[in-house]
Amino acid sequence: MGTPDHRHRVVVIGSGFGGLFSTQALRRDEVDVTLIARTSHHLFQPLLYQVATGILSEGEIAPSTREVLARQKNARVVLGEVTAIDLQARTVTHETMGRVTVTPYDTLIVAAGAGQSYFGNDQFARYAPGMKSIDDALELRGRIFGSFELAELASAPAETDRLMTFVVVGAGPTGVEMAGQIAELAHRTLKRDFRTIDPKTARIILLDAAPTVLGSFGRKLGGRARRRLEKMGVEVRLGAKVVDVDPTGIEVEHPDGTRNRIESVCKVWAAGVSASPLGASLANQSGAGLDRSGRIEVLDDLTLPGHPEVFVVGDMISLRDLPGVAQVAIQGGRYAAEQIRRRLAGTEPKGPFEYVDKGSMATISRFSAVASVGRVQFSGFIAWILWLAVHLVYIIGFKHRVTTLLHWSVSFLGRGRAERVVTEQQVFARQAIEALGERFQPHLPRVPEDRADNGTGQG
Amino acid sequence: MGTPDHRHRVVVIGSGFGGLFSTQALRRDEVDVTLIARTSHHLFQPLLYQVATGILSEGEIAPSTREVLARQKNARVVLGEVTAIDLQARTVTHETMGRVTVTPYDTLIVAAGAGQSYFGNDQFARYAPGMKSIDDALELRGRIFGSFELAELASAPAETDRLMTFVVVGAGPTGVEMAGQIAELAHRTLKRDFRTIDPKTARIILLDAAPTVLGSFGRKLGGRARRRLEKMGVEVRLGAKVVDVDPTGIEVEHPDGTRNRIESVCKVWAAGVSASPLGASLANQSGAGLDRSGRIEVLDDLTLPGHPEVFVVGDMISLRDLPGVAQVAIQGGRYAAEQIRRRLAGTEPKGPFEYVDKGSMATISRFSAVASVGRVQFSGFIAWILWLAVHLVYIIGFKHRVTTLLHWSVSFLGRGRAERVVTEQQVFARQAIEALGERFQPHLPRVPEDRADNGTGQG
Repeated sequence: MGTPDHRHRVVVIGSGFGGLFSTQALRRDEVDVTLIARTSHHLFQPLLYQVATGILSEGEIAPSTREVLARQKNARVVLGEVTAIDLQARTVTHETMGRVTVTPYDTLIVAAGAGQSYFGNDQFARYAPGMKSIDDALELRGRIFGSFELAELASAPAETDRLMTFVVVGAGPTGVEMAGQIAELAHRTLKRDFRTIDPKTARIILLDAAPTVLGSFGRKLGGRARRRLEKMGVEVRLGAKVVDVDPTGIEVEHPDGTRNRIESVCKVWAAGVSASPLGASLANQSGAGLDRSGRIEVLDDLTLPGHPEVFVVGDMISLRDLPGVAQVAIQGGRYAAEQIRRRLAGTEPKGPFEYVDKGSMATISRFSAVASVGRVQFSGFIAWILWLAVHLVYIIGFKHRVTTLLHWSVSFLGRGRAERVVTEQQVFARQAIEALGERFQPHLPRVPEDRADNGTGQG
Repeated sequence: MGTPDHRHRVVVIGSGFGGLFSTQALRRDEVDVTLIARTSHHLFQPLLYQVATGILSEGEIAPSTREVLARQKNARVVLGEVTAIDLQARTVTHETMGRVTVTPYDTLIVAAGAGQSYFGNDQFARYAPGMKSIDDALELRGRIFGSFELAELASAPAETDRLMTFVVVGAGPTGVEMAGQIAELAHRTLKRDFRTIDPKTARIILLDAAPTVLGSFGRKLGGRARRRLEKMGVEVRLGAKVVDVDPTGIEVEHPDGTRNRIESVCKVWAAGVSASPLGASLANQSGAGLDRSGRIEVLDDLTLPGHPEVFVVGDMISLRDLPGVAQVAIQGGRYAAEQIRRRLAGTEPKGPFEYVDKGSMATISRFSAVASVGRVQFSGFIAWILWLAVHLVYIIGFKHRVTTLLHWSVSFLGRGRAERVVTEQQVFARQAIEALGERFQPHLPRVPEDRADNGTGQG
């Protein structure tokens, strides 16, 4: 496939599980890999909720992609946002802070992932951030800790109440983990930190339009997770569809058509995903189908119809109901690398992509999780130990594993949380909290010209 | 001093060394302490440069003030920016996201610290951020790593050069530590991370208008620090006064009146301090003098003339040439607490505040530092071990000490840096880098309404 003047060029879009693992799988092959990603870090997304709730630092779940791939000589990392893919010309156009570059490929692996979906109500995003990026997690960290800070100063009981009511939308693994962690934070970590409010009285509400918690884990584990959450003080409300979100509350509709409003300043959206818009572009050019989440219908071997040189892996694909989990992306990335290797060697291609379900798990609190491995289901402490082991192994880079284990010891065995810093850059947190009512006058976000005053004053 | 209906009320402004240590020193006294601070964390400022260069996470140098004081029952922490002090009414007015609160005091401890000073050229701040807050450090982290990312993509050699030229203004401890760390980052940590550029060719320039490096350490140690920096590849230019700073460069004037321009995108300002503007307000009301750095001339016992109930500690004071270092703030805070204790007990007040110089130190690179303890001067590895021990002991909270030690092992013994994450919120970094020239079109910073698209795409 390569032309005589250069090695086979593989371009990988995305530094998530699919992009990183396909690149690493090509480390011994006679190819030149260019990995183009919008952030300079790989993100261990399953632990984002721990950054949001002050347990881990950003660096612990987001190692530098460049550092991870430093010793892989045939890989080059480029920071940039892909703005176009041209299937005819076989080029990828990407932009880095205004600079536009066009990179040609012989084989393309698209692993651009998925973002949060608000099901057509994008205006909700401002008041209920998603949980997809480090920025999201730091934003939520600012809102969660900021709500307690403001509640400590609130004078009216109604104001205290809405500041101490946290709503998590979506009872999948991310929503369950967030609700559980906010409950632990309020009822345990912050127990002694305030003088006016009692954080133990905080309300944590987990909403879902579906009738079950952790639907994909089956009825039995979902029921256990629900009971455990309720024991921790989380109010679980199912069959509750969100119809409106504003600065100080959220409105839900029940199956019988009744609506009610929950007064809450800090809302978290963990309810839906929408594949990268690059999927739509690929579909347009190739004629492949697109499902309602924007995921592209790929062939059995993860290639685009009519374009065997283009693989799509991870959250962007719609294939035999594969779930949007890390393992699908990792295995897909490795499968694509193996196919490229066989093509270059001229050997028989692998058969259709077969996903090996290694199981799924979700933590509910420290020492308690649910896990489903094949037909075996675990819950409680055993599931939690399993969760701990699996997550430690997958966190990339030995050094992160050790510091992470330490931060976990602090959080699970002790009461503290080491990573509670909120910077002034969490302007959205301030805006959301400022929108509390008339008494809260808008406080303008810092503008660049203001930076001279930055450090003057207490701190 | 207290009235019958309440315990003696001490209000402390600032959660830096002065504010935190005075509060802790009052833990066994019959007083009610309210600590008002603009950030929810204490900041271990001497290690900010390590956050800026990717060694430590924010949480490791900035523990939650609330968590540090959680078990101190007589202390209350309030997040807020002090907007006014009324010496007549004995009240402090503070604002939290638009909410205004007035807090009365019987004794006031003002420990609001100092910010960066640009000597009347506040417009420089945008292009050469200071090193005073976590935001500053994360901003600089974004600029430093971002410069290498862009250099990897640059097409013109002049562009590569200015992206790979780092200028640190100010050869005091902070400037020396920053220059040393950027040199280690470029020459060691990033050695294998890029494919187009060679980070080892990066230029690091340390400028100062004064004729010496580390002036306060004396000629001998300053000379050693200079030689060590030069050995590491840092260009030290003394007697060079900065006269202009713009997006792509910095202009310096030499003692003979000649000027020259250094092309550089990433500049760091570590050159001057300016005390909190609260000092000017205290001076106006009490008639106390103010020096040109905005520091207030306090009496021998750290109180304001005519106001024995108001103590000023730390970087805000001008008294017998005391330096602006952590130990002056710590000892001042403890002294104020002791005076309050004696007054309440009706015993003899302590004599004038005596600063015990425990020495000063600055790291130059891993395994190399300079330290001055009384008349004894150390440099090299012994000074570095001293630095390590002292900083480990002073970092507040056991858990931070352990994870910090680990992150240090990674950085000093290995080659990696665990904390390299740059978020999208480092908009200033993007703006500064975008201003590189005509080819770099402005890329609008994300606005709140955009957040719905946040996670879509690669990453």
